[in-house]
Amino acid sequence: MKLYIGNQNYSSWSLRAWLIFEQYQLEVEVEKLTLFSTEFYQTLEALTPTAKVPTLIDDETTVWDSLAILEYVNEQYLNGCCWPNDSLRKAKARAVACEMHSGFLALRNELPMNCRAKRQVVLSAEARKDIQRIDSLWVEQMLKHDGQWLFGDWSIADAMFAPVVLRFRTYGIELSPLAQQYQQKVLNSDSIKTWLKQASHEQDIIIEDEAGVER
Amino acid sequence: MKLYIGNQNYSSWSLRAWLIFEQYQLEVEVEKLTLFSTEFYQTLEALTPTAKVPTLIDDETTVWDSLAILEYVNEQYLNGCCWPNDSLRKAKARAVACEMHSGFLALRNELPMNCRAKRQVVLSAEARKDIQRIDSLWVEQMLKHDGQWLFGDWSIADAMFAPVVLRFRTYGIELSPLAQQYQQKVLNSDSIKTWLKQASHEQDIIIEDEAGVER
Repeated sequence: MKLYIGNQNYSSWSLRAWLIFEQYQLEVEVEKLTLFSTEFYQTLEALTPTAKVPTLIDDETTVWDSLAILEYVNEQYLNGCCWPNDSLRKAKARAVACEMHSGFLALRNELPMNCRAKRQVVLSAEARKDIQRIDSLWVEQMLKHDGQWLFGDWSIADAMFAPVVLRFRTYGIELSPLAQQYQQKVLNSDSIKTWLKQASHEQDIIIEDEAGVER
Repeated sequence: MKLYIGNQNYSSWSLRAWLIFEQYQLEVEVEKLTLFSTEFYQTLEALTPTAKVPTLIDDETTVWDSLAILEYVNEQYLNGCCWPNDSLRKAKARAVACEMHSGFLALRNELPMNCRAKRQVVLSAEARKDIQRIDSLWVEQMLKHDGQWLFGDWSIADAMFAPVVLRFRTYGIELSPLAQQYQQKVLNSDSIKTWLKQASHEQDIIIEDEAGVER
C-alpha cells in the first residue's frame, strides 16, 4: 500500500489516516507531498478526482478521504477491530467519528493544526462551543474508560480526534481534568510522538495555517 | 426504531437517513420537528449531545449523524447490502459518500435544499467547481452503470447525493446528459416522490434557506 500525506506539521486529515498504519504497524509506503505545491497537484490529480490528501493506493483500489481510508484499512487488514465489538458502542463511536468528519468548522478554521507552534488566538462563540462539545465528549468517555482510549481499545474515533489534541496543545486551550487526561494519553502515545518527530524536521511555512500570536 | 427529522422541504441531512428506511421499507416511526423551533431543541437536547437531525433511536442505541445512521442500519438490518459487494467498489463508494459528507461546503451554502422552490442564484467559483465535480462523478458512474444507481444497486452513496439532486432541480443547474440521466432516475424513484409529496404539505419558511430569486 502507498499512502500520500501532506506536511505533517499542518495536515490534520493526513494524520488521521496515517495513524491506523502506525498504530498497527501495517506495512505502507508513505509519500509526503508539500501542500499546495505544483508536485502536490500533479501527483494527486493523476491519482484521484479531488487532489486531496490523504490518498491511499492499494493495488487497484484508490481511496481519497480520511474516514473512508480508516474504514477500508479496518475492514481489509484488521478484521474490523478498530470499532468497538458490540453494536451499541460501535454506533456511538461512528456517530462521534462522523460528527468530527463533517463538523466543527469553526474550530477547524480558527485553530489550524500547526504542530510546532505555541500560539494564542481570540475565538468566536462558535469555536468555543465546538471546544466545549469535544471537552464534554472526552470527559464522558473517560468516565467510562478511565485512562484508556475513547471507547476502551483504540478505535477510529481516536484517529478522528487526534488532530484536535494537537490543535488544543498549540493554542493552549484549557480543558477539564478528565479531558486533559485523554489529551495526555494521546500526546504520550508512540504513534503521536513519531508523527511529531517527523513533523519537526519540516521547514515549509503554509501561511493560511499560521493563525494567532506567539505565547 | 424512531427517526427524528427536520422539515422535509429543507433538511438535506434528514433526507439521507430517511431514504434507507423508505428504500427498503423498514419499519420506523418518523417524527418531524420544525427546524430550530423550541420543541426541536428541547426534544433533541434530551436525546443527543448535538441537538441535530437526523437522529435515530433504536432501543438503547442513539445515532446522531446521517452517515453513521446509514452505516448502522445497513449493518444491523440489511446485511451490508447498501455497499457494493466487492472491496474495490465498496472503497470507492465510501470515498464518494465521505467526500459528500465532509465537503462541498460552497455548494451547500449557496444552494440550500428547498424542495418547493424554483430559483436562480449567482454562484461563486468554488460552488461551480463543486457542481463540476459532482457532474463528473455522476457521468463516470453512469458510463459504468447506465440507467442504474451510482454503483449499480442502490447504495449509501445514492443516499448521500440525493439532496444534491433536489438542489440542482431547485436552482436549474445545467448538467451533462449522463448526469441528467442520473438526476432523472433519482427524481422518478418512489422514495423521492414520497419525500417531495410529504414536503409539499409543509408551510414553514426557514429564512436562512431561502436563497436566490424566482425563475
